[in-house]
Amino acid sequence: MNLPARVKLREVAPRDGFQSLATFIPTSRKRQIVEAVAAAGLKEIETTSFVSPKAIPQMKDAADLLALVPRRGITHAAMVPNETGARKAVAAGADRLVAVISATGEHNRRNVRRSIDASIAGLDAVFEAAGDTPVTGAVAVAFGCPYEGEVPIANVFRLATSYLTRGADAIILADTTGMASPVQVEQMVRRFQDRFPEPDLVLHFHNNRGTAMANLLAALTAGARIFDTALGGIGGCPYVPKAAGNLPTEDVVCMLEQMGISTGIDQTAIIEAAQLLERILGYTLPGQAMKSGPVSCVSERCAF
Amino acid sequence: MNLPARVKLREVAPRDGFQSLATFIPTSRKRQIVEAVAAAGLKEIETTSFVSPKAIPQMKDAADLLALVPRRGITHAAMVPNETGARKAVAAGADRLVAVISATGEHNRRNVRRSIDASIAGLDAVFEAAGDTPVTGAVAVAFGCPYEGEVPIANVFRLATSYLTRGADAIILADTTGMASPVQVEQMVRRFQDRFPEPDLVLHFHNNRGTAMANLLAALTAGARIFDTALGGIGGCPYVPKAAGNLPTEDVVCMLEQMGISTGIDQTAIIEAAQLLERILGYTLPGQAMKSGPVSCVSERCAF
Repeated sequence: MNLPARVKLREVAPRDGFQSLATFIPTSRKRQIVEAVAAAGLKEIETTSFVSPKAIPQMKDAADLLALVPRRGITHAAMVPNETGARKAVAAGADRLVAVISATGEHNRRNVRRSIDASIAGLDAVFEAAGDTPVTGAVAVAFGCPYEGEVPIANVFRLATSYLTRGADAIILADTTGMASPVQVEQMVRRFQDRFPEPDLVLHFHNNRGTAMANLLAALTAGARIFDTALGGIGGCPYVPKAAGNLPTEDVVCMLEQMGISTGIDQTAIIEAAQLLERILGYTLPGQAMKSGPVSCVSERCAF
Repeated sequence: MNLPARVKLREVAPRDGFQSLATFIPTSRKRQIVEAVAAAGLKEIETTSFVSPKAIPQMKDAADLLALVPRRGITHAAMVPNETGARKAVAAGADRLVAVISATGEHNRRNVRRSIDASIAGLDAVFEAAGDTPVTGAVAVAFGCPYEGEVPIANVFRLATSYLTRGADAIILADTTGMASPVQVEQMVRRFQDRFPEPDLVLHFHNNRGTAMANLLAALTAGARIFDTALGGIGGCPYVPKAAGNLPTEDVVCMLEQMGISTGIDQTAIIEAAQLLERILGYTLPGQAMKSGPVSCVSERCAF
């Protein structure tokens, strides 16, 4: 198996996980979660998004939250759908912006009410507003679209080029509704890194069909080194019916560390953070390691 | 990726899934599930086990169930812990017996109240009782033990040898409590098939730490061709605290078919079987494809 010595995880629960929850989570609770994942060793956190509070009320405290969270050594990324969001995020002190466009017209229209062309045209203003703040370009439904089905790789490459020519230094390829297979992921990672060897490549897998961890393994052995994960496995696109959660951060940490791959994240601390999140949300989360404990924890010795 | 043209799945929900349920499932309901998975295309089903009705009351209808299920073209396997179980299974017309011994002394003692040596010594009578009925030898906790921790591969090979020298033609390596990593699985499959090239090798993964599908992918690319799966992802060892479910049959079928690997199983039919099981059990099952539908099902066109 072609495996690296280390992998970087981006924690997306505060954005991708919380955005789809109907009940508003108090800002102080969000701060607790961000603090817990930072303390466990995560270095990049997608902490919030600067979107219309009418569209996604859960994110209305974006600026307040950014003012409260620990900053030292942590990159706080903020998702921005447009120039207005980018200006607010920069004003609030976001360390990195994440722009997002869908790889299919129908998903993009449902997500931001724009055509892909209109979204690409809007990138100039987003990058202008970003100024010196680095920008990651995210490609939603890169592996399949719940409305249009198969997604031509040319659509993905076109969006990546649109981001990179404007100055993005990282690209996220998102399997927004869990449609990717390991074969497809392996081919995508290889073809993407052949075509775009310079930027950081981030893979973002949802688990709608139970394949997210297998897709991570396929991406890893194909050369991917950065993954989006969400504490407890929460998440889901609010515009896609029945979209299931992200890869649970604590499950990925435990698996990678067991494989001899360093994540820089403490297994016990990240499991405890997931358990804190479960107490805050008040229902059982999809993550598994938070129920069984790390492999090193045998039942005679541990409280798990 | 080193991928085969086809893979065989063994359905274990009726045994591994049901055995841990406290509420007795009526025999007619068990029959419905066996019929549904057989109709979807499964050719081998671990239909029941012949164990003490005091130890596992759920399996007390083993002989009755075997008399009711469709037989044509289906191999009905029955798990047997000892000679008594083997005699009853043969008398009830089981097509195949599955003997099981744990790879660690402590797990074996908790599972069958015997030392490993005593279990191995008991195999002679089990194979004698089996007569012409083929026998599969299962190795529990082959990838890690919740009581003893790491499991030496010599323990696994010793049990495999004990089964094979007595006439077993297939070996199941079970990750009973979801402790395996993809690296470990790849090494195990390669080393096992180097050492024992003749018998069928079956991999049986539990999902206690979210790694079961990644472990299946690692086993598949290392050369494994037969997997145990359970409808809806139900299951768990009744003797292990918090043991999580098996790989969901319908999720595995959808992923493999999407990868171009034939399972001989109809995706829609197996998802409908999982949905039937969910209605019978009355609570949400871990399987994901039964919630989102196969990838070919886009939301504008499908009822999922």
